[in-house]
Amino acid sequence: MTENALLLTAGILEQPNAKTAHGLIRTTSRYNIIGVIDKNSAGKDAGYLLDKVDRNMPVYATLEDFLRDSPRKAKYAIIGVAFPGGKLPVEMAAEVKAAIRAGLSIVSGLHDFLSDMPDMKELAAQHKVELIDIRKPRPKDQLKFWTGEIMQVKCPIIAVLGTDCAMGKRTTATLVTQATKEKGLNAHMIFTGQTGWLQGNKYGFILDSTYNDFISGELENAVVTCYKDTSADIIFMEGQSALSNPSGPCGSEFLLSAQCKAVLLQHAPARIWFNGQENTGIKISLKNELELIRSYGSRVLAITLNTRGLSLAQALEYKRQYEKEFGLPVVLPLEEGVG
Amino acid sequence: MTENALLLTAGILEQPNAKTAHGLIRTTSRYNIIGVIDKNSAGKDAGYLLDKVDRNMPVYATLEDFLRDSPRKAKYAIIGVAFPGGKLPVEMAAEVKAAIRAGLSIVSGLHDFLSDMPDMKELAAQHKVELIDIRKPRPKDQLKFWTGEIMQVKCPIIAVLGTDCAMGKRTTATLVTQATKEKGLNAHMIFTGQTGWLQGNKYGFILDSTYNDFISGELENAVVTCYKDTSADIIFMEGQSALSNPSGPCGSEFLLSAQCKAVLLQHAPARIWFNGQENTGIKISLKNELELIRSYGSRVLAITLNTRGLSLAQALEYKRQYEKEFGLPVVLPLEEGVG
Repeated sequence: MTENALLLTAGILEQPNAKTAHGLIRTTSRYNIIGVIDKNSAGKDAGYLLDKVDRNMPVYATLEDFLRDSPRKAKYAIIGVAFPGGKLPVEMAAEVKAAIRAGLSIVSGLHDFLSDMPDMKELAAQHKVELIDIRKPRPKDQLKFWTGEIMQVKCPIIAVLGTDCAMGKRTTATLVTQATKEKGLNAHMIFTGQTGWLQGNKYGFILDSTYNDFISGELENAVVTCYKDTSADIIFMEGQSALSNPSGPCGSEFLLSAQCKAVLLQHAPARIWFNGQENTGIKISLKNELELIRSYGSRVLAITLNTRGLSLAQALEYKRQYEKEFGLPVVLPLEEGVG
Repeated sequence: MTENALLLTAGILEQPNAKTAHGLIRTTSRYNIIGVIDKNSAGKDAGYLLDKVDRNMPVYATLEDFLRDSPRKAKYAIIGVAFPGGKLPVEMAAEVKAAIRAGLSIVSGLHDFLSDMPDMKELAAQHKVELIDIRKPRPKDQLKFWTGEIMQVKCPIIAVLGTDCAMGKRTTATLVTQATKEKGLNAHMIFTGQTGWLQGNKYGFILDSTYNDFISGELENAVVTCYKDTSADIIFMEGQSALSNPSGPCGSEFLLSAQCKAVLLQHAPARIWFNGQENTGIKISLKNELELIRSYGSRVLAITLNTRGLSLAQALEYKRQYEKEFGLPVVLPLEEGVG
């Protein structure tokens, strides 16, 4: 049975750092999302706020409002924000404690493990609820090293990479997987972040909380296991960060260790600086990212655009410009679909 | 006081996977190496075997031979081999136990932590010796995220990268740091592997046993701390793996997160396949690695050659060929020096 869950978004539901919440509002088979607590977006429907589609997910200003007004009860409260650093902001700690006191189990993808905090642990024990830290790494003896078995996978493996983090890679990967299924192909998606797990994807792992030595093997293992179990016709992989992101470059593992010979590249034309790095003087470069992918021996099939901060007319202008400059198809997944 | 230590090399002292032992035989300020246990190289001097220089480090076939014949006593036995996967081979477990019974503390850089093995733990307690797992990750609250502070470091930061692992990057980094010091510059080396720590280097961390999310921040922090503490004129960094190694690509963190705008590229002409990956069909390519480094916006200053498996004449022929093909200086660090 899929249990009811509430999202906590710390007042930033409409910001990119609430990407975990965005993913769960759009799709999850692991939980039934029945509302969001966010003081800055209260009174609206979370689905409407995101995509102009009502999804019966009201936004409440406070937990008290939810407890008083909601016709449905929640079992879980999910922390729906991911701050650079993965820390629990002080103001959120109070909200999490209130949820525990209200009898909700907490699901967290933060680096700071709730189950390691003595005060949280004690409170959870008192109220007989669970603290579920989904980023807690698996024991090493359950982790895999790279073996080369990936060379035996015969179906196309396509990575959805991007020019920065928090840019929509997971959303695009989810959409293209769904669209490919609708075309009658046996398509699967490999998740690599906590939201992918929360959404109920079966194959994958949480990349950034894994020891560096096991990343390549875990990526390979996710693809190989998915291929063997499902006889997939095509596999899409959720990428992380960007090849050229100085705060945490990532991508070559997908191109080499997971042998993704084809790439969809997600880009946000309105974003100038890498997320949280306005002060470094290092700009995002779509052109450079395309060159890097080619240097690794993979092919970019299309550029997909995150249109945040743009009017539709501006987005379409970027689309035309990139198509001309790079000679590649350019798609607006949320506006145009990915069929 | 620097304590005496013994190296255990499981019969492969003369193979690349004994690279930890090689590093410690050549240089360490953390220990005083007084011998090696290796059944296939017994009777010789370890320094002579490696570099044709006697270093008063006799190789013994067995621990019993050492205990009976050595005029010096050891406090530590250091596991001097690093197998792909970081596991403790079964045959070595017996040797480690014998060392514990002989009253030696064990220093290990393996992924398999000795202090997590009940039998080792019990035996060590019985014999009142320590089990020192140097790869055990530090607690997360001691790890750093990337901040961009690297942009404030004004001295050149040079990465020693390579076209594969176990190829001599650390040795070349150590040699160039020493040679630069001899020229009167305040040069420092940042270590990123367990051997670098064992050798007594002060700045750095063990990259492959760190959570992926903290790699960039730890690299940056090592450089920034070294620069602030020492007012370095120049900083060399020990690279890991290769940008194009499918079993664990690495390098972009050095070029972007640590802002190494210059690179020395270590290559072994006689090596065709990536270490332990003969069955994948993916070959090492010096040309591709050079292109990748350029795609990341960094400059290769010189190619340094590991001449294993080559005669001096063959090595010099490769040197001429690469100088012509790539228009770069090509150096044989161990044979010619790096001055």
